[in-house]
Amino acid sequence: MGEARVGDNSSRLMDLVGIDKNAARDHGERSFQDAHVAVGDKMLDSGLSEDRFQKGDQYRIVCPKKFFHVVRALPSTAGGGATGSLQVEAFHLFVKQLLPCPGRVSAILSAQIAIGVPVVALVASVSEKNAPQPSIQALVDLVSGGMDSVNQLILSKAGSNVDLIPEIAKHLISSGGKRLRPMLTLACADMFDYRGDGHVVLAASVEFMHTATLLHDDVVDESDMRRGKLAARKLWGNQASVLVGDYLLGQAFKMMVDVGSLEALRILSEASAIIAEGEVMQLGAAKNIATTEDQYLKVVDAKTAALFAAAAEVGPVIAGQNAVTKAAARNYGRELGLAFQLIDDALDYGGSSADLGKDIGDDFREGKITLPVVLAVSRGRHEERTFWQRCLEGNGIADGDLEEAIALMNKYDAIADTVDRARTFGDNALAALDQLPDGLHRDALADTVAFCISRVS
Amino acid sequence: MGEARVGDNSSRLMDLVGIDKNAARDHGERSFQDAHVAVGDKMLDSGLSEDRFQKGDQYRIVCPKKFFHVVRALPSTAGGGATGSLQVEAFHLFVKQLLPCPGRVSAILSAQIAIGVPVVALVASVSEKNAPQPSIQALVDLVSGGMDSVNQLILSKAGSNVDLIPEIAKHLISSGGKRLRPMLTLACADMFDYRGDGHVVLAASVEFMHTATLLHDDVVDESDMRRGKLAARKLWGNQASVLVGDYLLGQAFKMMVDVGSLEALRILSEASAIIAEGEVMQLGAAKNIATTEDQYLKVVDAKTAALFAAAAEVGPVIAGQNAVTKAAARNYGRELGLAFQLIDDALDYGGSSADLGKDIGDDFREGKITLPVVLAVSRGRHEERTFWQRCLEGNGIADGDLEEAIALMNKYDAIADTVDRARTFGDNALAALDQLPDGLHRDALADTVAFCISRVS
Repeated sequence: MGEARVGDNSSRLMDLVGIDKNAARDHGERSFQDAHVAVGDKMLDSGLSEDRFQKGDQYRIVCPKKFFHVVRALPSTAGGGATGSLQVEAFHLFVKQLLPCPGRVSAILSAQIAIGVPVVALVASVSEKNAPQPSIQALVDLVSGGMDSVNQLILSKAGSNVDLIPEIAKHLISSGGKRLRPMLTLACADMFDYRGDGHVVLAASVEFMHTATLLHDDVVDESDMRRGKLAARKLWGNQASVLVGDYLLGQAFKMMVDVGSLEALRILSEASAIIAEGEVMQLGAAKNIATTEDQYLKVVDAKTAALFAAAAEVGPVIAGQNAVTKAAARNYGRELGLAFQLIDDALDYGGSSADLGKDIGDDFREGKITLPVVLAVSRGRHEERTFWQRCLEGNGIADGDLEEAIALMNKYDAIADTVDRARTFGDNALAALDQLPDGLHRDALADTVAFCISRVS
Repeated sequence: MGEARVGDNSSRLMDLVGIDKNAARDHGERSFQDAHVAVGDKMLDSGLSEDRFQKGDQYRIVCPKKFFHVVRALPSTAGGGATGSLQVEAFHLFVKQLLPCPGRVSAILSAQIAIGVPVVALVASVSEKNAPQPSIQALVDLVSGGMDSVNQLILSKAGSNVDLIPEIAKHLISSGGKRLRPMLTLACADMFDYRGDGHVVLAASVEFMHTATLLHDDVVDESDMRRGKLAARKLWGNQASVLVGDYLLGQAFKMMVDVGSLEALRILSEASAIIAEGEVMQLGAAKNIATTEDQYLKVVDAKTAALFAAAAEVGPVIAGQNAVTKAAARNYGRELGLAFQLIDDALDYGGSSADLGKDIGDDFREGKITLPVVLAVSRGRHEERTFWQRCLEGNGIADGDLEEAIALMNKYDAIADTVDRARTFGDNALAALDQLPDGLHRDALADTVAFCISRVS
């Protein structure tokens, strides 16, 4: 326990601390207690941190959202201050890599200090070393060259003479998404030794479609936060979010047209309509605890799995593969997407361990109907419906409601069975992979399934 | 003055009244004073009226929005009532044809009574008969066969298993838009004797893009009304408007892909991005009286003219014409779009006659910066800026403000010069037509320019 690992070798790295998992938050409070916490400060461009750390580092920013709650838990003082040798005026913390297994490394964090001020990284906890974990690192490594091109293209296509557009687009693009969807596109083309740059352009289009959806989602959900940052709609208004989403969607289609594959265009435009259809479906199910498992899975299939499926399928399409191969890639993507979303749903109620941190209950607070809720309600007693109705169909929840919800879910195995269904979808994804060529890419795609599932284990 | 003309020969027509222009509103009040006015009532499907009247009639519904204000001006009583021999319980009025010239027929109105109840039509005013007026009737007649197919396709592609989607789509689609853009696409393909159905599919795509823009616009503008009906966002919420707009956009791209012309796809996806860019630009200019004429024209070029240009250009594209021809169609569409929007801007302040009715001032009340405002502000005295600031950048206007605004505009020839600029764009459109083949279609497209301009004359 408590072994320190170097999380960053940047020359800007001033300090590094290894700590016990249980002491992580205490430690954070001690380290930064004199600092002026200004999370969300406009002076900070969180994208800088990702840029700065990713290049020569062994870690990627995986899930900044996860850490936001920790940051908020840190005490804030009005003035600047000193922390050891650091002059810290404002900082923004990221989880550089969130590892899934309790009892092992649980989080590697980095702090982005305002420009010109030193940067600190810390290891939140280490308990067992060198234990192999399911990881997307193999996928990340395999497509890293292509992803550099994708990221460049994304930044260039998010440009516009209308200042607000790159401002908002970069806010969202730089906020540390995993870029899992474009990585699927690249890997599913690279595995056939594709030698053009069409996959890069399609991958960027896929990410734009995803980004546009996020912008519109935030308006629809009236979300305040997105990946641990203030949602664009809170910073620039609903209007700008709607319109910049439309712009990114237009740019996505322009890029697809540039590639010139009508088949890829068909797949992605179909996905675009299905995603919107899924979102409308979700709107109908919102705050409605009578939603059935079947209805909910249809929503997930449309709003999440459709883009994963399309992202994977356009790989073999651009590489000129046959129908069986294209269907296999599509199925892989779809099943992965279903698994991915259900694991997200489970994680929001703490996953199977229920001790991953304080960053749970977002879906519950927003009244979102997800599979753990659907299962708990459908298996629950009649009088428990009153509780669910008050929490999810009513206007806000009280202290203790989240704990009560998790207790009811555990009573009916709702979280465990959500994970179980995700495992089944994950198995289906692995089965689909069997029809794709053996090799490093296939192995990496299999690891990706295991990684998605392992987030709750 | 005062000559009656038969506005409808439907067997459902129970009454017909010819009245003097100046007495039109008084007349309306008398006729319907005992009726229960239920505008926007969900039982009414305004599309029914259009369907019922268009088939065997000599008039089309041109501008239902224009009449809404008159409807609102009618007294409403709580119960049902009798008007002459009519039992009227609920009705919705449309302008069946709004004729542009003061001193001539100014409006032909029809009333859609709840299903199963008789329908009345009336002629608002007639002063000179048989004077030929610029009209889009030639265009309408030429493409009527194709437009039937377009309308069928639109209704079928607006379908979805998710009930909310066709509900909202049909609300908007049936609310009596002119469908000018898809008519341009059809005419610009038909003029080359195009013999496929690609132009129909592209025309439907163009209308879907336009419809999606309207849905998102209403959210952005926080509009309450759209074409004289409650805006979709007021009936179903902002969320549904955003998502159904996204769905229609996805369907539009799917249809374009079905056509299989990468060139048409390039043109329309480019337009899609430019429209969104224009809307973001407009957002930046909103409620900002420092907007320059150049800035405003850039907004119009992007948010309105780009789709007109694309709609026209894809005609010769699908018909396999050369670059010069395609550019001519594009230029025609663009210049027509610019003229169209500026005339709309002028009409909102009463046009050059300033006596077209009470349906003016919507832009002013919404704080929209349009060319008449830009010209009046830029030419005005410093102390007049206070007035414009209070009205357009502040929170609401007072009685007499609209009259004051129009007086200032007239003082600086702002409305007349807006119309003048529209005429210039119209002339450019006609010049572009010279490069397209002579014939009925070209004549109809020229008439369309004249019609657009004549709305204010």
